[in-house]
This record gives sequence, structure tokens and C-alpha cells, in this order.
Amino acid sequence: ERSSSTMSLTNEADAYFAENPAPPSLATAKKQLDDFISTHVAQNRRVVLITSGGTTVPLERNTVRFLDNFSAGTRGACSAEYFLKAGYAVVFLHRQWSLLPFARHYTHSRNFFLGHMSETADGGIEIEDDYAKTLLPILRAYKKTQKEGTLLMIPFTTVSEYLHLLREAAMSMRPVGANGVFYLAAAVSDFFVPSSEMSEHKIQSGDADSMATPVTGAPRGKTLNLHLSPTPKFLHHLISTWAPTPALVVSFKLETDPGILLAKAKQALRRYGHRLVIGNLLKTRSWEVVFVENGQGGKEEDERWKEDWIRLEGGEKGKGEIEALIIPEVVRRHEGMMKEVAGSNGNGVNDD
Amino acid sequence: ERSSSTMSLTNEADAYFAENPAPPSLATAKKQLDDFISTHVAQNRRVVLITSGGTTVPLERNTVRFLDNFSAGTRGACSAEYFLKAGYAVVFLHRQWSLLPFARHYTHSRNFFLGHMSETADGGIEIEDDYAKTLLPILRAYKKTQKEGTLLMIPFTTVSEYLHLLREAAMSMRPVGANGVFYLAAAVSDFFVPSSEMSEHKIQSGDADSMATPVTGAPRGKTLNLHLSPTPKFLHHLISTWAPTPALVVSFKLETDPGILLAKAKQALRRYGHRLVIGNLLKTRSWEVVFVENGQGGKEEDERWKEDWIRLEGGEKGKGEIEALIIPEVVRRHEGMMKEVAGSNGNGVNDD
Repeated sequence: ERSSSTMSLTNEADAYFAENPAPPSLATAKKQLDDFISTHVAQNRRVVLITSGGTTVPLERNTVRFLDNFSAGTRGACSAEYFLKAGYAVVFLHRQWSLLPFARHYTHSRNFFLGHMSETADGGIEIEDDYAKTLLPILRAYKKTQKEGTLLMIPFTTVSEYLHLLREAAMSMRPVGANGVFYLAAAVSDFFVPSSEMSEHKIQSGDADSMATPVTGAPRGKTLNLHLSPTPKFLHHLISTWAPTPALVVSFKLETDPGILLAKAKQALRRYGHRLVIGNLLKTRSWEVVFVENGQGGKEEDERWKEDWIRLEGGEKGKGEIEALIIPEVVRRHEGMMKEVAGSNGNGVNDD
Repeated sequence: ERSSSTMSLTNEADAYFAENPAPPSLATAKKQLDDFISTHVAQNRRVVLITSGGTTVPLERNTVRFLDNFSAGTRGACSAEYFLKAGYAVVFLHRQWSLLPFARHYTHSRNFFLGHMSETADGGIEIEDDYAKTLLPILRAYKKTQKEGTLLMIPFTTVSEYLHLLREAAMSMRPVGANGVFYLAAAVSDFFVPSSEMSEHKIQSGDADSMATPVTGAPRGKTLNLHLSPTPKFLHHLISTWAPTPALVVSFKLETDPGILLAKAKQALRRYGHRLVIGNLLKTRSWEVVFVENGQGGKEEDERWKEDWIRLEGGEKGKGEIEALIIPEVVRRHEGMMKEVAGSNGNGVNDD
């Protein structure tokens, strides 16, 4: 029996998907996802769905302006490489043009790639030795994923596209069961402009405040007022409905105020009932994160909070990438969960 | 004698720069600009300042969310290549991580660059022949700019950084005089949140409406309200004060509604007193633009509007880039202006 608050959450989600149309890319994405998942389920390979980058909230239907969430995609793109290295197949649901696994090493670099290339005698192009040395492991790892078909990349831009694709991807993951991980690193818009209330055309800075929408143009020299509605809490729907029940769901919590980080992480675990939140602060996220887990789950008096800080040796000036520490820790917890599931099923555990 | 409305515009700009601090990068940018400009003035080379990409309006000081303007940087990055080809030195003031000249051919491509590379027998990396053939002209053009020092790239992110850097760049262009062009393709925020009124930390979707700022958090489930102030009209200051008087200033006007494009272009020319607006529509901008010029200038009854549409042959499905048509036309008009200036100075014209 679902409580009335759960029913209203469900209605809220259903209404959202009805009112905000699916992206044109959805049918193709579904096909790609189903093919990808069935290939890896047949090989008993673990699969992780990684979300990465910020979602946008368009202010006009013919979009000239939009609200965006700060996220280069570093966490997601970097983590993808380490999950692949750990033998997982990766579905990389990312903000279009944000950082991609492998490509991130040269697309968003101040070190201009073309500056390291030169023309050969026979009209070809070679990459200079020193640069090639650093690129080689990346090229090899990329080629391996291509050979094994272990990387599927799906782009989104708006929050609406993201939610439709996330739902589709999560449902496609059902056959993966306990072999599945959801690693939700994307920065998702908390607020949006409903499709039906969006301005058709570019809001004019000189317009009088006469448009019957929540996004009103402003008389020249006056303020622009935006009134945005809260996005449905998709994490609830992912965990309760879309995703396979035994999968490990890892959500991220980014805060700017250190004083509230742990409280917000625990709040999320209480609210959504999943196992693990990775908390981080805007300013230190490249070298420290905290794993927050509720060991017991269930009632508040039974809570056994575990908070494990992972930090790069050397802190801010540390060498290497913190994802090299994060992913093995996530994998360890995933294996723990898989053992629990197998134990309760009376099965042995398949180790890949 | 300045009118009171001009005085208030000036005060508005001064106030803006006083209240919105310069980016840390400003001093370095000034040095780079001065060196770059003096080199090319000494060679009597024409210089174009191209602005490209969208500016952001942060909603928090520790920025988690921001308002952005849709602009991949295609127009600016592509135009830069054609200006370089035409012999201009280019200052490329661009949104960080948006498209760059030359690099644009592989950074934002669905055609994964790594997929066209392979390891050589001696542990190096080569680029496969077919792909190398297409990249070769780009590599050559890039190497030429490096050799001649004709490309200076300066990044910005926020509208505040952009305006500080634009002012610095425009003032640094003064020695260029009539040899200078301003090609303002960036999508600049019309509205912003004043620094003093910005939220310090990430706005919480669960916050009560109690913050004394124009950006108020919302109680869980309620709306988020944003109240933004109009940005000062920087184009006025660029033309009247910052830039060298005889330079050609080209501004862009992007609209989504075809019915108002020409009116808006003319309005801009009347308002700012420059020579040329390039108008385009969101949906057709990759294959058609309109050059709008006021042949006479001055009083409304003397206006002689010229509207010249430039279209790619084949329209939307046309081959090639429309910038290959736009830039020669801009250069032609620049040369016309240079002749006018030289004529009124009693000098001959230096053709480069």
C-alpha cells in the first residue's frame, strides 16, 4: 500500500514526464542501451551507469538563455576511466560537450594539441615523441574499450532530456541486477521552467512586464524576474521504481559550506533509502571526498553512520587523481553488496 | 558637453566596474595585449578583436548555479580562422572551453579523435591517413599563426570578467587606429546579479524565503525567485570611449523571431552610432545572415538603410562555411572605412 505522499510523488513524476516531452534521441538511446546491456549481461560483466555534467533549464522554447549547474564533468569522466580499468562496462550519460573519458586529456587542455603535431615528409601527421608518450596509455585504454564494447556514451543538455534518459537507462539496467551500480555525479537542476509556461521567443530586455508567463521580460532598465518550479525528486523514483532493486546506488552531494555537508549527506540517505552518498565541497573536491553510509538503515534510532574521508596524499598539491582512490572503494562496497544479495539468494558469488 | 543621460550612463559603467571586481587574470591579459598590439602595429598589420561564446551570471559567490547565454562559439571561432587567412592579427576573447579556432575541428566532434590514432612499432602515435588529410590544412594554418604570432587567445567565464577584459582589450587597441576591427560575436548577458547582493553559499532548495538578497531560496516544494538587474550597455562605452575612434565596430544581433530582426538591428545602430550590425536568426544562423548598415548616419530622416543578405549556396544543406562569405565582406567594408579615414587625413592608404 502506498502512502498518500508516495502517491503524490508518483503523480508528480508522471505529470512531469507527460508535460515535458521526451527528447528525439530517446528511441535511439533505448535501442543502444538494450543492446549494450544484453551483451554484458551475457558475459556476466558488471555495469555502472555514470551520470556526469550539469543539466540546463531553458528559459525560452527557442533557447537563447538558460540556467545551468556548474560541472565540468571532471568527476564523471575521470571515474569512468577507473571503472573501465576495474573491468566494468560503463554507460556514460553526460552533458553534451562536457568532459569525456579519454578525450578529456586533450579537449579541454590549455596545452594546445595541434602544437604537438607536425607534418611528415609524405604528407601525413605525426605526434611529437614526448607528448605521444603521455598519450599512449590513454590511447591503449581507449582502444581496449572499443574492442570490448565496454563504453556507451549518451549525451543530454536540458534537465528534461536528462530525466527521460535517466529513467530509460535505469530501466534498461534491470537485467543487470546486483551486478549494477548507479554513480550519479551529474549536477541536476533543482528548479525548472515548465514547458507550458516557457516563453516562445527570446525574452527582450526592453519588454514590458506583460507576458503571462513566470519568466517576465523587463522594461528597459528594470529587473528581470524569474519564477522557477522545483524539479521532482528523481532519486526517489530511480531507487524505488526504475532501477533494479539490488543495484548499488551512489549519489553525490556537493556543498559550498563545510558546516552542512555531513548533515545534507545524511538527510539524503534518510530521504531516499539508498546506501551511499559521496559528499564533497566545491573548493576541495579534486582532492578530498567523504563516503557517508548508513550501516543499519531503517529507523533513526538504529542509524549507525559511517563517515570515511578519502584524501589525496599531499592534499591540494597532491599528485594523481582522487578517482584512483574513490573507485576501488566503491567497487569494494559493491562487492560487499553483491555478496549480501548472493547470500540471501543462497547462491555462490561470481567474481569477475 | 555631455547630456545628463550620457553622464548617468557613464556613472552606471563606472559604478559597475567599481562594484564588480576585476578578474585576477586582468593584469596578465593587459601585458599580453600590449605586447601583441605593439608587435603588429610595428608591422602595420590589421588587428581584429573577436569576442566569442556566452557570458555567465553566477547566482552564488561560491558558484554552483549560473545563468548562461546559448553560444557554442561557432561564429567566433570560425570567423577567427578566416580573419587570420585574410592577414589580420586576431585577439580572440572567448568563453573558456567554448570552440577555439583550429581546435574546433576535433574538440567538439562526435568523431572521436582517438579513434583515428594508432600506435606505431616504435612506441609512438600516428594519425590515420584519411583523417590526417583533412587535418593537414588546419595544422598548417595553425603553425603559420604560431610562427607569425598572429593569434592571442584570452578566456573569460562571467559577464563581469568579460566586461573588464573587453574594456582592457579595447583600450589596448588604440594604437591600431583605423587598422582595427571589433567583431563582437559573444552572447553577452543582458541581466546580472550584483556582487554585493549575491548569495555567499549554494542556494538550498529547502531554504525558507528569508535571505535578504534578490536571489531567494525556496521552501521545499515552492518556487525559486530570481530578480536580476540589467547589465550596463557596454557597446555604448566601447564605441564612445574605450575603442579607437576610427576602428570598424561590428556588433551582432541574434533573434528568434524573424519579424523583429531588422527592426532590432536598426535600433542598435541608432542607439550606439556604429556602422554595421550583422543580424541572424537562431535557427538559420549557420547559413544566412544580414548585414545592416546606415549609409548616412545621423538624423532619422537622413537614414539610408542598407540590408544585404548573405546566404550559403544550397541554404541549410549548403556546403562550406558561411564565414567564408562573411569575413571577405567585413574586410571589404573595413578597407572602405580605412580609405575614408586616410582620405580625411590626407594620407595615402597602406594596403596590407
